[in-house]
Amino acid sequence: MPELRKDPIIGRWVIIATERAKRPTDFSFEKEKDSLSPHKKCPFCEGNESLTPPEIYAWRKSRTRPNAPGWKIRVVPSISPFLNILGDLDRHGKRMYDLMNGIGSHEVLIATPHHGPDAFIKDLPQIEKLTEVIIKRMRELKKDQRLKYVLIFKNYGKVAGGGNIPHEHLQLIATPVTPKRVKEELVGSKRYFDYKDRCIFCDMIRQELDQNERVFLEVDNFLALNPYCSRFPFETWILPRKHSCDFDTMTKDEIKGFSKIFQLTMDGMIKTLGNFPYNIILHTAPFRRRKKKGYWETIENDYHWHIEIMPRLTQVAGFEWGSGFYINPTPPEEACKYLREVESSE
Amino acid sequence: MPELRKDPIIGRWVIIATERAKRPTDFSFEKEKDSLSPHKKCPFCEGNESLTPPEIYAWRKSRTRPNAPGWKIRVVPSISPFLNILGDLDRHGKRMYDLMNGIGSHEVLIATPHHGPDAFIKDLPQIEKLTEVIIKRMRELKKDQRLKYVLIFKNYGKVAGGGNIPHEHLQLIATPVTPKRVKEELVGSKRYFDYKDRCIFCDMIRQELDQNERVFLEVDNFLALNPYCSRFPFETWILPRKHSCDFDTMTKDEIKGFSKIFQLTMDGMIKTLGNFPYNIILHTAPFRRRKKKGYWETIENDYHWHIEIMPRLTQVAGFEWGSGFYINPTPPEEACKYLREVESSE
Repeated sequence: MPELRKDPIIGRWVIIATERAKRPTDFSFEKEKDSLSPHKKCPFCEGNESLTPPEIYAWRKSRTRPNAPGWKIRVVPSISPFLNILGDLDRHGKRMYDLMNGIGSHEVLIATPHHGPDAFIKDLPQIEKLTEVIIKRMRELKKDQRLKYVLIFKNYGKVAGGGNIPHEHLQLIATPVTPKRVKEELVGSKRYFDYKDRCIFCDMIRQELDQNERVFLEVDNFLALNPYCSRFPFETWILPRKHSCDFDTMTKDEIKGFSKIFQLTMDGMIKTLGNFPYNIILHTAPFRRRKKKGYWETIENDYHWHIEIMPRLTQVAGFEWGSGFYINPTPPEEACKYLREVESSE
Repeated sequence: MPELRKDPIIGRWVIIATERAKRPTDFSFEKEKDSLSPHKKCPFCEGNESLTPPEIYAWRKSRTRPNAPGWKIRVVPSISPFLNILGDLDRHGKRMYDLMNGIGSHEVLIATPHHGPDAFIKDLPQIEKLTEVIIKRMRELKKDQRLKYVLIFKNYGKVAGGGNIPHEHLQLIATPVTPKRVKEELVGSKRYFDYKDRCIFCDMIRQELDQNERVFLEVDNFLALNPYCSRFPFETWILPRKHSCDFDTMTKDEIKGFSKIFQLTMDGMIKTLGNFPYNIILHTAPFRRRKKKGYWETIENDYHWHIEIMPRLTQVAGFEWGSGFYINPTPPEEACKYLREVESSE
């Protein structure tokens, strides 16, 4: 009998197929290939800096010039930005509709000077540095009073909208509104907090550690787990064990722990699933600032940041767009077993 | 400057790229091909009835036997159902999680005895009959007290999760819960109704007819429009002009009008976009029944059923899963222009 499970945070129901659960080898996906034409230069490679818009920030050797070689991580504006950084929000109504100018920032975080998909994930200091750069950008963008949220995400593989440049990079979109999915989680965790006076994510973590069926990894003060209401086969979340709303408040030590678990999680998933297509997204609290009139915005301390890794293995997902109803052919408990097996066979 | 638009019903923000808007010819998608191996029989063709599970219902010539030729529309259980029709719901908690048995029905509505993608959409009486069959199934499933909702949808094309049988068919999933997206619309339209004492969809229709920028077609008492907050390029909704919560309360005349506008809409979209991949989904009110204790469930008369047609032309959509933030490169006003041009050039 399949199971209908209710997401405790946002109340979404998911169908989990408990019989004939799909194994890692049951999924087929197109091999990702380097689709950059051989006579074209990769705009993200060291030496090709002139092929991107001028850099916003770079972690580079001292005495190297901006937009020249010598960098390890580089942040550039998107060449086809969805949002503009210049202008006023001009929020207004048009009869029954509401709109505002598409103010925001759309940036590309080039994670390594080296081409190809493998260079980055094997290099732990580079992952740590990238985490620092993300935090740096978030803190910088927080100063812009027009902006409310920074979306950090990575699309890998064609079916995941990953584009055709096989050079490790993330995207950053800073927006003047909080994305709907994050807002739903904020509302859900606030409701729980109001009722229980505890963080729902903290309670979930405690229960998951206790049940020990869906926790794939524990590293320092972080864990990687396959959530009870996984929408996708092998969906994996990384969370700090210690309560924390904002990604950008991590200490140096926490950045090390986070980078380590991120590396091990991706490594385990790739060993289990192969070179799989995925979306990764960071969920963190919206910007909270002291308002001019001297009070704080009413976003409480009841959120808990986390990373969602969503493998795109199934095409069954067609109608989910229109219904919000997910069908997952691999129970998270099974996914976790496979991931643990790979890990323990090391 | 791109525009951020807020969906008036559920409050979702969408980025609409107003400059360099993408035209129909800017989208490339894989040609759909008949991927049924030549030596395999199509299970949905007349004469191959034994290849599906026994039929649940069929519209067939009198004096023909069930599961034999002579039918025009056939409803069969899915061969790989996501939900089981037999059993108890057994809703219960598992510490902080909630779950229930995956009770429900998963059916395939074979829309025509003829193979290939074109046979169905050109045949108006067949569309009318299919609409009647959908209504019949909805009314039948409504009798099952365990069920709350009937999801009717169609996935066409590989990227839309359409499977590999190029024989026109819809899917039906009856569930013991209301899908999240529909619930959000119910909540949003109730909030508007409580405030304005009017249906938000009716107000939207009135405004759209008045503005005349996004209404693609008007046929009898139905319209096809490209919604102000379209998530996808060329997203199109079909709505009854007259307020109505439930799809299954249509009269004979309304079924005729609906079938006509559905045919013209699909025809116009195919002429504009080519043989494009899509998801279609019906949004209608959940089942409302008189409860045993003598009162009605508190779902008000404030909803308005509609069909959402979502072309799957962009792969940009990667991170939307995790953020609920949509980016649409074709403003609905532009989409509507292209659709109207094709229509008027007839």
